[in-house]
Amino acid sequence: MALKGNLVIGQSGGPTAVINQSLVGAVLEAMNYDDIENIYGMRNGVQGFLKEDIVNLSKELKEDLEKVANTPSAALGSCRYKTNDEDCANIFKICKKNNIRYFFYIGGNDTAETAHIINTIAQKEDYELHTFHIPKTVDNDLKGNDHTPGYGSAARYVSMFFMGDNLDNMSIPGIKINIVMGRHAGFLTAASVLGKKDESDGPHLIYVPEKFVSLDKIVEDIGNVYEKYGRAVVAVSEGIQNKDGEPIIAPYIREQDAHGNIQLSGSGALGDFLSGEVKKRLNEKLNKKLRVRADTLGYAQRHYPTIVSKNDASEAREVGKLAVQYAMKGEISGSVTINRKEGKEYDIEFGITDLKNVARVSREMPDEFISPDGNYVTDAFIKYARPIVGELPETGKLNNFPVE
Amino acid sequence: MALKGNLVIGQSGGPTAVINQSLVGAVLEAMNYDDIENIYGMRNGVQGFLKEDIVNLSKELKEDLEKVANTPSAALGSCRYKTNDEDCANIFKICKKNNIRYFFYIGGNDTAETAHIINTIAQKEDYELHTFHIPKTVDNDLKGNDHTPGYGSAARYVSMFFMGDNLDNMSIPGIKINIVMGRHAGFLTAASVLGKKDESDGPHLIYVPEKFVSLDKIVEDIGNVYEKYGRAVVAVSEGIQNKDGEPIIAPYIREQDAHGNIQLSGSGALGDFLSGEVKKRLNEKLNKKLRVRADTLGYAQRHYPTIVSKNDASEAREVGKLAVQYAMKGEISGSVTINRKEGKEYDIEFGITDLKNVARVSREMPDEFISPDGNYVTDAFIKYARPIVGELPETGKLNNFPVE
Repeated sequence: MALKGNLVIGQSGGPTAVINQSLVGAVLEAMNYDDIENIYGMRNGVQGFLKEDIVNLSKELKEDLEKVANTPSAALGSCRYKTNDEDCANIFKICKKNNIRYFFYIGGNDTAETAHIINTIAQKEDYELHTFHIPKTVDNDLKGNDHTPGYGSAARYVSMFFMGDNLDNMSIPGIKINIVMGRHAGFLTAASVLGKKDESDGPHLIYVPEKFVSLDKIVEDIGNVYEKYGRAVVAVSEGIQNKDGEPIIAPYIREQDAHGNIQLSGSGALGDFLSGEVKKRLNEKLNKKLRVRADTLGYAQRHYPTIVSKNDASEAREVGKLAVQYAMKGEISGSVTINRKEGKEYDIEFGITDLKNVARVSREMPDEFISPDGNYVTDAFIKYARPIVGELPETGKLNNFPVE
Repeated sequence: MALKGNLVIGQSGGPTAVINQSLVGAVLEAMNYDDIENIYGMRNGVQGFLKEDIVNLSKELKEDLEKVANTPSAALGSCRYKTNDEDCANIFKICKKNNIRYFFYIGGNDTAETAHIINTIAQKEDYELHTFHIPKTVDNDLKGNDHTPGYGSAARYVSMFFMGDNLDNMSIPGIKINIVMGRHAGFLTAASVLGKKDESDGPHLIYVPEKFVSLDKIVEDIGNVYEKYGRAVVAVSEGIQNKDGEPIIAPYIREQDAHGNIQLSGSGALGDFLSGEVKKRLNEKLNKKLRVRADTLGYAQRHYPTIVSKNDASEAREVGKLAVQYAMKGEISGSVTINRKEGKEYDIEFGITDLKNVARVSREMPDEFISPDGNYVTDAFIKYARPIVGELPETGKLNNFPVE
C-alpha cells in the first residue's frame, strides 16, 4: 500500500499544444487511488505554489478534463521562474504543511532541476515525498530521451507552415526566409523539411544553431539556390551563431546601434536583418531586383489549435499517467522518459531515469542529423522525425502539360 | 449554341488557401462544353501570358485537379503585375492569335480592372471575347460583394491563432500584440474576435485601418486592459493610421532613421515598434517590468494548409464554375458576386455584376462593424463573419475549484 496523502501537480515553462494531455493523464490516473486524498493544482507553477495559490483538481469532471486535454497551452497557468535554494526550501515547507506526499512537475530541464532540489531536501529531512518530473518541451532538448512531448505538435506546425510557404513561393517566386524557434537546438527548424515532396520544393536551405555559420555563407548558399530554381525558401533557427559563438546578428547590431537595445528573440529583428542583407548583397551580385521577404513563426508554433500530432498527444498523455503509476508503485523520484526500440517500425518504450540525468543540461541535434555542409538536414533526421510529427496533408500540383 | 474557341484562365495577386478551388471549378465546368476546344492556363497570370507562357489544362485528370483544388496557393503561378494599356493590347492580340474566346481571370480589384480593359478592347475591335473576373482576396475588400472567396479561410487562420494566443497569454500573463494583414481593410484583423468565449478572453483590443488611432491611445487602452485582467492580447492591422492618414510608425521612423529605409510591410517592424513603445511607456506609468511581446502573423494567413473554411472552399469552387456557365449562356463579361439573402440563417446568392463595378476601387469595413471608440468590433461584425469562417474547435478550461 502506498502512503496516504495529498498530490500536487504543476506546469512550467513555455506552454505546448499537448502539455494539458500530461496534466489530464496524471490527474485522471491519480483519481484511481484511495491513498491520494486530494489532487491539487499549482496555479502558474511553483511561482503560484510559493504563494499557496492552489486549486482543487479532485472536483473536476472527467468530461471537462477531456476538453482541457485537447486544449493547447497550460490550463493551470505556467511560469518562467528559476527557483533558488530558499524557494525550494519554502516549496518543501508548503508540501509538508499540506501533507503533500506526491509532487509532479511538468516542464523542461529547469523544471526537472527544481524537482531534483526539492527531492533532495525531502530526503535530507526524511520526509517521504514522491517527486516526479513529467517531460515537456517544444525544443526537444531533454537528455535521456529519444524525443519529448510537445515537440511533435510544434514540429507539425512548422512542417505545415513550410508546405504552405513553399507553395506560396512557387506561386510568386522570390526569396523567403523563415525564422523558427530554437535557441540552442535545431530540431524544430529541421522539421521544416518534412512536408517536402520533390527536391525542388522548399525549404532549400536549413540553418540550425548546432553549426556555426556566417552571413557570407548564407548569402552565397541562397544565391546558388536562386540560380538553380529561380526562388529560395530558407529555414533559419532563431539561435544561429557565427564562428565566435554569438548570435549572427550581434556584430551588426553593435555596429548599427551603440546602445545595443535591439531585442534578439521574440521579435522580427533577425528575419528583417537577414532579408535586408540578402536583398542588398544578392541584388548587387546578380544585378537584379529580387523579392526577398522574411517571416518569424512566433508563438503559433507552440499554441496553434488543430495541428496536434496524434503520437505526440498520446505520448504526452501517457507520460503524465505513468508518473503517477511509478509513484504509486513506490518509486521515490524520477523523470519519465520516452525511448525508441530498435526496428523498422516506430515503436517506443517509456521508462524512468534519475532527475539529475535530465535536470539543467540540454541536448542538441546529433551530427548525423545535419548535412556535412551545415546548411541542410540528413535522411536520418527525416526518418527520426516523421513518425513523431505524423502524416502530413496531401497536396497536388498541375502537370503543366505543354500547349501544342 | 456558344461560340467555338479556346479558353484561357489565370490567377493573380496574393494567393489564398482556396484560389485553386476557383481554378478547378472553372476548368471542370469548361470540360463539359464541346464548344470550348482547349482549356489553357496562364503561368503566373498575365505576366506569363504576355510571353505566351501557357499550359494545357484540358489534359489534366479529374483526380489530379481535385488534389490541386485542396492545395493552398496558386497552382498556375500568380503575379503582382499592374498592366498598362500596351500590355492589355498585347494580351488581346495573343487571345486573337490563339482563337481564345473565353478569358477568365481570378483575383482582386486590379485583376478585375485588367479584365475590364481587355474586354473594352475586344468590344472595340468587334471580337467576341467572353471576359470574366472570378473574385478572390484575403482582404475581403471587393465592392459589390457580401464577402470574397479567400477571406473565410484566412480569417479562420487568424481566429484560431488568437484562440491559441489567448490561451498562451493566460498561461504566462503579459501583453501580447499581434499584427494582422490588411493595409486598408480591417476584416481580417476583426476576425481575431471569433474564437472568444468569455469577455475576459483575448483579443481585448482590435485596431483596424478604417479608424485613425494614436500611439497614445493604444498605450492608454492597453494599460486599462492590463489593470483589469493583468494581461492583454491586442490585434492590430498592419495598415493602422494616425490622424494624418499615414502609417502609425511613420513619424517615428522619420525621427529615428534619416534614410527612411525601414520597410513597413512584410516585416516585423510594426510589431517590434509597438511592443517596444508600449513596454517603455507602461513600465514608466505603472512602475512595473511588464512582459510585452509581438508577433507578425505573416504569410501563413494566406497559405496555411488544413485551416480552410468549408463555406469558403465551396463558394470559391462555385464562383469558378459559375463564371464559365455565365459565359456559355452568352454573357459577354462580368464579375461573379456573392451576396447574402435576408433572413436568420446564412444563405447566399451568386450573381454577376459589370466588371467596372468591381475594378480598381476597394471597400472597407462599414462603420457598423467597428465599436464607437474604434478599438474593438461590434456584434454585427461577429454575426456577419461567423458563418464565413465556420465552426471553430472546442476548447476547455479548468474550473479552478478552491481548496478548502
